[in-house]
Amino acid sequence: MRQPLNSVILAMALIAVPRAQSDAQVPATIEAYVAAHQREIVAELADLLAIPNVRSDGAGLRRNAEALRAMLVRRGLNAEVLETAGVPLVVGELRVPGATRTLLLYAHYDGQAVDPGGWKQATPFTPTMRTGRLEDGAAEITDFRTRATLEPDWRLYARSASDDKAPIVALCAALDALKAQGLAPTSNIRVLLDGEEESGSSSLGAALRQHRARFAADLMLFFDGPTHPSGRPTIVFGVRGNLGIGITVYGPKMELHSGHYGNWVSNPAMQLSQLLASMKDPDGRVLVKGFYDGIAPLSPAEETMLRDVPDDSAALMKLFGISRTERPGLSLQHALQLPTLNVRGLASADVGAGARTIIPDMAVASIDVRLVKETLAPAMAEKMRAHVRAQGYHVVDAEPDDATRARYPRIARVTGGGGTNGYRTDPSSAVSRAVTTAVTRAFGTPPVLIRTMGGTLPISQITDVMGFPAIVIPTVNFDNNQHSDNENIRLGHFFTSIRTIGALLRM
Amino acid sequence: MRQPLNSVILAMALIAVPRAQSDAQVPATIEAYVAAHQREIVAELADLLAIPNVRSDGAGLRRNAEALRAMLVRRGLNAEVLETAGVPLVVGELRVPGATRTLLLYAHYDGQAVDPGGWKQATPFTPTMRTGRLEDGAAEITDFRTRATLEPDWRLYARSASDDKAPIVALCAALDALKAQGLAPTSNIRVLLDGEEESGSSSLGAALRQHRARFAADLMLFFDGPTHPSGRPTIVFGVRGNLGIGITVYGPKMELHSGHYGNWVSNPAMQLSQLLASMKDPDGRVLVKGFYDGIAPLSPAEETMLRDVPDDSAALMKLFGISRTERPGLSLQHALQLPTLNVRGLASADVGAGARTIIPDMAVASIDVRLVKETLAPAMAEKMRAHVRAQGYHVVDAEPDDATRARYPRIARVTGGGGTNGYRTDPSSAVSRAVTTAVTRAFGTPPVLIRTMGGTLPISQITDVMGFPAIVIPTVNFDNNQHSDNENIRLGHFFTSIRTIGALLRM
Repeated sequence: MRQPLNSVILAMALIAVPRAQSDAQVPATIEAYVAAHQREIVAELADLLAIPNVRSDGAGLRRNAEALRAMLVRRGLNAEVLETAGVPLVVGELRVPGATRTLLLYAHYDGQAVDPGGWKQATPFTPTMRTGRLEDGAAEITDFRTRATLEPDWRLYARSASDDKAPIVALCAALDALKAQGLAPTSNIRVLLDGEEESGSSSLGAALRQHRARFAADLMLFFDGPTHPSGRPTIVFGVRGNLGIGITVYGPKMELHSGHYGNWVSNPAMQLSQLLASMKDPDGRVLVKGFYDGIAPLSPAEETMLRDVPDDSAALMKLFGISRTERPGLSLQHALQLPTLNVRGLASADVGAGARTIIPDMAVASIDVRLVKETLAPAMAEKMRAHVRAQGYHVVDAEPDDATRARYPRIARVTGGGGTNGYRTDPSSAVSRAVTTAVTRAFGTPPVLIRTMGGTLPISQITDVMGFPAIVIPTVNFDNNQHSDNENIRLGHFFTSIRTIGALLRM
Repeated sequence: MRQPLNSVILAMALIAVPRAQSDAQVPATIEAYVAAHQREIVAELADLLAIPNVRSDGAGLRRNAEALRAMLVRRGLNAEVLETAGVPLVVGELRVPGATRTLLLYAHYDGQAVDPGGWKQATPFTPTMRTGRLEDGAAEITDFRTRATLEPDWRLYARSASDDKAPIVALCAALDALKAQGLAPTSNIRVLLDGEEESGSSSLGAALRQHRARFAADLMLFFDGPTHPSGRPTIVFGVRGNLGIGITVYGPKMELHSGHYGNWVSNPAMQLSQLLASMKDPDGRVLVKGFYDGIAPLSPAEETMLRDVPDDSAALMKLFGISRTERPGLSLQHALQLPTLNVRGLASADVGAGARTIIPDMAVASIDVRLVKETLAPAMAEKMRAHVRAQGYHVVDAEPDDATRARYPRIARVTGGGGTNGYRTDPSSAVSRAVTTAVTRAFGTPPVLIRTMGGTLPISQITDVMGFPAIVIPTVNFDNNQHSDNENIRLGHFFTSIRTIGALLRM
């Protein structure tokens, strides 16, 4: 039901003054609004999910952009599709008279590529409601659009259900819920919907520079990612960056008979193994010189923050089938405060039934280094190269030619170096405390506070240009099959996120 | 031209006495015979090569066996197709009155699998003559069967041209050449043609045991493999064995997000790298306990023998594009006297464009250990397992179950252990010296003497059962593309091998 105009005017007046006592009631009224409008909120999400949004489908992405612009306009935002060098951005603005703070709300509307064969439904863009987890044999609910009540354990399956269309629809529903109470946000709102997040947000930096004034804000709220597995509302103050490094160690120019030349021609798979082994001690500490440079010991307050995260390590270890973690004594949250050196892939000739008795001609490792705020990508890439050199390798950027082969006994090609920097804002800053307070008030209990989450989000690409801080508000279920087949959003998480976002709009 | 019967009778008489002075002329007369009969000798080889001989073609293998039996019968051998549990053997016998020595002549008639698409001719079983190396752009000679003269640099392309049908046809031609001079072999001859060499000669041991008396001999001459790259006639007194070992290091039960869990869940690709690195020092010496046990220092005579092999290390290094060998100071021949630990393949998740930001669930290495006479396969397999255990791994034979995962922090599956033992006979024994003398006499210059060749031949499978020594007589060009597309035999090597085999039949 639409609010009469005078309610809106009343709300617009309210925001010019400090938050009224009545705001204590806002969470409950949002919850009531959501309960009363479940069907139409979920229908709006399902309609959005039905528009294909993969990288290769430019027309589909543009249809998404147009639909999103219309959704923002319906909430009273001044919105447009903003062209970039690549996929367009969708931007929106809601100026609130008297507001002294401007929030930039970020989400993305593009999705990971799909392999339709792996999806247990007509297509990844045919939103499909189930009574629970597909893996648990949940039944499909074909008439969900006409059901009176939708259960919190139900899940809507479609590409981008969780990553990252649900937060956009939740934002729209939160604006509707406030409006229904005659409330406006307490901050000016700028919305930035990225269409290239899954492919690296490569056009975003230039667009931000070109339209800098339109994106100016005091704080960015970055809506992406899952809440803590405990299901509790979660606030994330930092993310790790990522740096992909490829290492190829070269052996003989061609594969050689392992009998005829074994012991005489060096084996690049063994050399690569020795090179990788030189990078970590047996307890998982990285030995690359300077790898941990600049990372200060944690303060008592930070230690407390990490300890308060309700991780269930034993349950995770059981789920993963491991009986020891990499660095005994380092909790999961502590582990996430440090950069990683992860061998994500190895390849050399063949194994198993296809193995042949040869000395391989090369061996390849793919490494991803997760970065923290203190360890910048370019410097880390150079440290990795320096380490390879220190092991006696001549480092090349391309296949070695004959002259290079004749000159250097050990040759490695090291690729990579772009990468995404990590990011972290101070959890004790005024704006961080305001966000924490707003979410605490919305639920009557403190959210899970994450100093640094393990994964990577393109936050530094924005904050490096714009200069204001960012806080991540993850909202979806952690078991959403993000980036995989059968991605889904649990309705309970989706409905809760409307409350969370509503609280932030009123903080 | 066939010899009149009385010449044959004369020859049969001759062999009862010590080798006559006239034997000094034998090499020259064999050479003359070959020169005069090039066309028919090559035609017989081409006809044999036209019969498909891959593992999967049982009917083709049997056609080969029948053709070979007929070829031996035409040379006066008592020959038959001998059934085994698998592909039949072809066996033949020529008893020579008065001979005090029996030679078992081994070759194999099966070939490696073929990928017809890689062959630059109608089929791998359409023998195709070229003026030289295909790789050098040699022209095809379609009318080679009617040419008066065949040039030594010409090559006949077909599967098994070198490996291993050429030696069989050369043996037949050598018998013909002797017969043309009224000569018989100076030893009793037993022929053993294996139809399963390329697939491991798995039926051979049982057949030998079942028909032990039929294969009894004083010496086995094993016709397989290439001569020294110098092209000089070559005698090989030992071969390395081979033991395939697979190692799988287990990580989490499923691939995990490298951001969410990096630094907390151990990485099996890194652990495998550390495990492999623990097996060799930087100078290529294997660190597995007991790896070199039982290998005595070389005697001065053995050192001389190795030094006399005319290896062109610089040319090989240039060809392979390497500027240093694995163990500086160890010559190629010295390297071949020791067992190897060769990583023939590595695999874990993906590299390159397909690399994903995950902690892999497992990492696999395929290793082949080339064995020498002193290092037996079963003991070496156990030493490898013991080494893995000594690095802190619980070694399993199958995928670890949840209970195993919960109990052991490091788990590795180690497979393999059958393997083929190495073999070596004493180059200074009477029979070894007789072989060396015969080949030296045939060419007027000493052959290349190889104490241990690097590759593996199934010699120990025969000598372990039969008890007599074996010597390998390789005859084909080293650049024959053995086991690959476009296998070929250089006619010069083929014709020379008839002289070599003739000399051995008269030794």
